[in-house]
Amino acid sequence: MGRDLKFVALAEGLFGPLTSKTAASCIRYTPERVAAVLDSTHAGQSAQDVLGFGGAIPIVASLEESLRFGPNALLIGIAPQGGRLPEAWRTTIRRAIEGRLDIWSGLHTFISDDSEFAQLAADRGVEIHDLRKPPENIPVSQGRTRDSAATIVLTVGTDCNIGKMTSALQLRDGLRRIGRRVAFAGTGQTGILIEGWGISVDAVVADFIGGAAEQLTLDAAREADIVLVEGQGSLIHPSYSGVTLGLMHGSLPHAMIMCAQPSRTRLRNHDWVQIPPLNELIRLHETMAATLRPAPVLAVALNTYDLTDAEARKAIARASDETGLPATDAVRYEPAPIVDAIEAFHQARLSSRAA
Amino acid sequence: MGRDLKFVALAEGLFGPLTSKTAASCIRYTPERVAAVLDSTHAGQSAQDVLGFGGAIPIVASLEESLRFGPNALLIGIAPQGGRLPEAWRTTIRRAIEGRLDIWSGLHTFISDDSEFAQLAADRGVEIHDLRKPPENIPVSQGRTRDSAATIVLTVGTDCNIGKMTSALQLRDGLRRIGRRVAFAGTGQTGILIEGWGISVDAVVADFIGGAAEQLTLDAAREADIVLVEGQGSLIHPSYSGVTLGLMHGSLPHAMIMCAQPSRTRLRNHDWVQIPPLNELIRLHETMAATLRPAPVLAVALNTYDLTDAEARKAIARASDETGLPATDAVRYEPAPIVDAIEAFHQARLSSRAA
Repeated sequence: MGRDLKFVALAEGLFGPLTSKTAASCIRYTPERVAAVLDSTHAGQSAQDVLGFGGAIPIVASLEESLRFGPNALLIGIAPQGGRLPEAWRTTIRRAIEGRLDIWSGLHTFISDDSEFAQLAADRGVEIHDLRKPPENIPVSQGRTRDSAATIVLTVGTDCNIGKMTSALQLRDGLRRIGRRVAFAGTGQTGILIEGWGISVDAVVADFIGGAAEQLTLDAAREADIVLVEGQGSLIHPSYSGVTLGLMHGSLPHAMIMCAQPSRTRLRNHDWVQIPPLNELIRLHETMAATLRPAPVLAVALNTYDLTDAEARKAIARASDETGLPATDAVRYEPAPIVDAIEAFHQARLSSRAA
Repeated sequence: MGRDLKFVALAEGLFGPLTSKTAASCIRYTPERVAAVLDSTHAGQSAQDVLGFGGAIPIVASLEESLRFGPNALLIGIAPQGGRLPEAWRTTIRRAIEGRLDIWSGLHTFISDDSEFAQLAADRGVEIHDLRKPPENIPVSQGRTRDSAATIVLTVGTDCNIGKMTSALQLRDGLRRIGRRVAFAGTGQTGILIEGWGISVDAVVADFIGGAAEQLTLDAAREADIVLVEGQGSLIHPSYSGVTLGLMHGSLPHAMIMCAQPSRTRLRNHDWVQIPPLNELIRLHETMAATLRPAPVLAVALNTYDLTDAEARKAIARASDETGLPATDAVRYEPAPIVDAIEAFHQARLSSRAA
């Protein structure tokens, strides 16, 4: 993926840490790639003002205004439920292509399949990257990750948009700091954008969810001691639980990290679904994993962005007490407690394999 | 779906009750639609000889031979793992279109998307029906079946190809005989072919499995007291468990029927996976359903086709003893024990709603 990418991130009316996950995560992990954010409702502010990170990256009201910050690509920085393209944004995309900006999109509706955009892009010599477009000929899964030597760790969670990708990225960095060769297996548009490769498992034909997860995990395992697989959805999510289970049974993790947000008691987009206690969820995940390969939950990764420091520390202590597992917010604080838990598990696994 | 369909069912090298499920089920439920079966390895035999049902339907060695039985359509009567089109069959499909036979296919690879076949079909005025092709614009699921008055019953099972569709069709007939308005919601190519409508939930983009299941269930519920949703895959299947859970969480059944084959102790295509005891599987399904809506398993539907009558009766008694639930083989014997269990559950639900 190009190293000199300079995005204008389209997040009209939705810029924020939860509402424009792709843009926000791109700013967190690769801020050098973001020239400006397009959201007229926050125009004049900086990324830092809205997200609490991202520094001086400017927010502008129009594509035209963003041009003075020198973008060379338009990033469609939202992931709306269902992933389809809002009609109102077509004009912006059209103008971006006309202005010779490449298009990077994480939507389910592929921009490159749109005959108008495809034609226009061809005319202007512009590239369209659909991050969710799956590779051809994914096989069905066959349990092939059982032959992989790498330790496979999957992040799972109580809901969508709860920190499964972010925790995995923080743990990747933490494990690298202690000398492990770690691969991050991106399974959604944002993870793929940040890491530069991956397969959007929610965008493949349903019979091939497991196959996509398996192929991705094997690819990641080739040069890694530890593979961190980015989780998707939740086993209790009415819309996406199929993707979650397919990802679990395709990647066949050796261990899992449970991600949760202490302040969230019901699913964000389905308030009829109450989130069960952590221990119940941990048992549920361990039970479902064990149908094919036992995988303990090693630690709890909390998302405390909406709590004060004191509240956050209390929530972490409570989660640890409740579950008997290490817990922390791997973004806000040092990820060490979870890194150490993964490292201990990895070493124990190596020893038992050697024995 | 046309009432005067006369298929030649392509099952080359694979005709049999398990290896060509689409052809075999079509012969079981709509024998009047099958003019001949194409499988050179069984040429000269009848469907009855190979399947144990289907009467005199002839098996022939070539498409040309089948023509004297007056087919007007070619049915691709297999569902290979992964669903892709065997190269060797392209010639047969080409000749069928040239001979003005319509094409009906349940493969993941859409015949109508193949430019050669599409062009040839257009030239000859032939229709191509891809049973797995999903409708446009399926929404993500939202738990909308909670508002439906009908009793929703999902067939689940220990493995693929174990009797989830067949049991549901037998129960449909049994419930109709006692006067219930029953809809069968077909979720795979064979169910759709037999019933004339449905959505192949394994062929939609992964994020929309639940949405497809929800839409299908709501459509089926419109004029039914009881909806029987055709289950897919298995919660313990390495390749397809995502489809299974998405279907469960999209349809949100009130109750489930557990389908199993007593002689099968390991998954058919994954012999590294041992099938757990019935009670454990029942608990697993009830636990996963209950994350969104509690749904008891009401009965066990056994597939005893490979057992003697004495063995089958013993297996049924054992399943019933083990689980404390009614059990039978709804194809081989009267489906009454399971029909009665569903009827009792349905009446209890009506009473509790009225109260």
